[in-house]
Amino acid sequence: MFMFEKPLGMRDTLPALYKTKRAVRNKIMKEISGWGYDFIETPALEYYETVGVQSAILDQQLFKLLDQQGKTLVLRPDMTAPIARVAASRLAGNSPLRLSYQANVYRAQQREGGRPAEFEQIGVELIGDESISADAEAISLMISALKASGLSNFRVAIGHIGFADALFKEILGNQERADKLRRFLYEKNYVGYREHVKSLALSSIDKQRLLDFLALRGDTGKMLQALSICESNDCRQAIDELQKLWSMLEEFGVSEYIKLDLNIVSHMSYYTGILFEVYTDKVGFPLGNGGRYNRLMEKFDRPAAATGFGLQLGQLLEALDVHEKEESKHCVLFSQERMKEAIEYAGELRKDGKMTVLQNLSGVQDVDFFTKQFEEVAYFIGSKRGASDE
Amino acid sequence: MFMFEKPLGMRDTLPALYKTKRAVRNKIMKEISGWGYDFIETPALEYYETVGVQSAILDQQLFKLLDQQGKTLVLRPDMTAPIARVAASRLAGNSPLRLSYQANVYRAQQREGGRPAEFEQIGVELIGDESISADAEAISLMISALKASGLSNFRVAIGHIGFADALFKEILGNQERADKLRRFLYEKNYVGYREHVKSLALSSIDKQRLLDFLALRGDTGKMLQALSICESNDCRQAIDELQKLWSMLEEFGVSEYIKLDLNIVSHMSYYTGILFEVYTDKVGFPLGNGGRYNRLMEKFDRPAAATGFGLQLGQLLEALDVHEKEESKHCVLFSQERMKEAIEYAGELRKDGKMTVLQNLSGVQDVDFFTKQFEEVAYFIGSKRGASDE
Repeated sequence: MFMFEKPLGMRDTLPALYKTKRAVRNKIMKEISGWGYDFIETPALEYYETVGVQSAILDQQLFKLLDQQGKTLVLRPDMTAPIARVAASRLAGNSPLRLSYQANVYRAQQREGGRPAEFEQIGVELIGDESISADAEAISLMISALKASGLSNFRVAIGHIGFADALFKEILGNQERADKLRRFLYEKNYVGYREHVKSLALSSIDKQRLLDFLALRGDTGKMLQALSICESNDCRQAIDELQKLWSMLEEFGVSEYIKLDLNIVSHMSYYTGILFEVYTDKVGFPLGNGGRYNRLMEKFDRPAAATGFGLQLGQLLEALDVHEKEESKHCVLFSQERMKEAIEYAGELRKDGKMTVLQNLSGVQDVDFFTKQFEEVAYFIGSKRGASDE
Repeated sequence: MFMFEKPLGMRDTLPALYKTKRAVRNKIMKEISGWGYDFIETPALEYYETVGVQSAILDQQLFKLLDQQGKTLVLRPDMTAPIARVAASRLAGNSPLRLSYQANVYRAQQREGGRPAEFEQIGVELIGDESISADAEAISLMISALKASGLSNFRVAIGHIGFADALFKEILGNQERADKLRRFLYEKNYVGYREHVKSLALSSIDKQRLLDFLALRGDTGKMLQALSICESNDCRQAIDELQKLWSMLEEFGVSEYIKLDLNIVSHMSYYTGILFEVYTDKVGFPLGNGGRYNRLMEKFDRPAAATGFGLQLGQLLEALDVHEKEESKHCVLFSQERMKEAIEYAGELRKDGKMTVLQNLSGVQDVDFFTKQFEEVAYFIGSKRGASDE
């Protein structure tokens, strides 16, 4: 039955999930607005050259099409690049700029049963502030928003891309070799990482440093341990920034949610400093992630530091595992001659906030089946009032 | 500056408009829910063969792309066909089914300055009820939703595709000639219609009937006039349905908003009975339209009568010409040593429902310019409290 099929990774959202999604979305949006962020909307389609190539997403995951002028368009794969495009034209002395979004993004999937190809992201971008304060704000707001959504059992893993970059560069010498190792982290393939390290023509000390690097996950104590692996200026700066961040997050009162993870990479080239991912036990993929990306705005001719996060509403709903109560509905069933009465009665119920279906009996094929779905049915049938109304 | 360009017909929605749009959207959705309709969401991308060819939109207006399996996908050009796809799998004894949607739809534009290529529709589909009551409900709900949005000066033009169809068939004999004339109505090109009629090889009586047909717009009196132009069974049935509809709309208390227009066509082939369009003086295009489409569900292997409407949120916002008050924001500006105090104070303001930006002084380049945007700024700078707090 091809007629009923949807493209790979495309899904319908039926009434019960729709209500749950909307309720959770509204809670998160309210929290984000409360922190002074302005929501904006950008188009689903953008020029490939403008947003596609700047986005954090692999080319093969882009939905591409040609417009009637022969230019390549993409369905936005994320919101950071579109927001940067807008921010570039709005950023002036009002910097830092706080923008937020709630939007579906699109990433082509390669096989059945994979992740959705269309999914909703809610996030913020804080543009024009290079202080660690801005990173701390992004992380704290993300935690506040998650708490507002009703989630409690989650952890935010915080890392710094500068540490791995500097360590890899120091030991491996060139970018190509560093990227190869970085890819294992990106894929969270730690077994592959170990095997690759063992296969490298390095001193046993350097091999051990690269292997010890994998242990840099856990509490703040791992920061000192990190410096025992690499003491270069760049590594020191990364750890210094993380220490500042950590103490700010304590002042924000959210340190119970965070853990250190210097193995986080999140993306092959996007982030430039502190970065983070949020997890729960219940869901295999991150509920969201974010970090500092100080090199994106310059591609829109407006160099500026920036940080932000994006939450995946679908993953969050799975983690929350809550369901809006199916709201009970009323029904006013009428026969033609009593339509006016029925309309008035339905109007009164609606005024009382009751969701009320008004239905002409002549339009119903199976009255028993039809009326079963309602909490209460009022009958305006024939010449006098029915059971529910007498 | 290609970097800042958006594809033809694509637009950004900046903060002030975003807020207005959201407020109006919520009012309309609340009204629709109140009438017992369930909102659902469907994917932005659908198979061309499933939804693209069934939609009410011209092929040249579809955004098409190929998926990785080589199948043609379309960005949904309307919501009626996707809802029909979902309804086909949900429709059982619970008929009639009341579904609603709020979604962006996509129609490629041919030139600059035209209509948007991405725009938001909010609408309902009432599936499985062939009674005129269902048409009356759709029209009344649309009027209620428009009133709930704050609109007052609007008119709903109501027609019946069966009348024009029958009249044209009777006089012109074949479908091809009827379609040619119908296209003038579809384009609301009445001058072209007249000239075309004059050029036809018809008796002067038939020419006059086709010209008189153009006068069938106005009050209910035009229904009688219509029957003087065409008395065939199909024409009688169309007028009979309109008369029933009219008296039901009187019972719904909305007849002040409606007028008759037997020249409405809305689409070249989609509608099968009563159909309608809503206008205001302020906006050149309809704010929305709808009607009966009894032949769509059978294409999803589930024959069923159906009616519904869709409102164009963008057009409605233009007609409303209201703007959400730019919500005033607070700012808490702090220097590092007083971060904790500042965080607490910002938290208090947010608890009071005040949208509050928390900003580290070190992240601001131009303090005067930055602080100008806020209603109130609290300073936590240096070793003691600043002006706003003493």
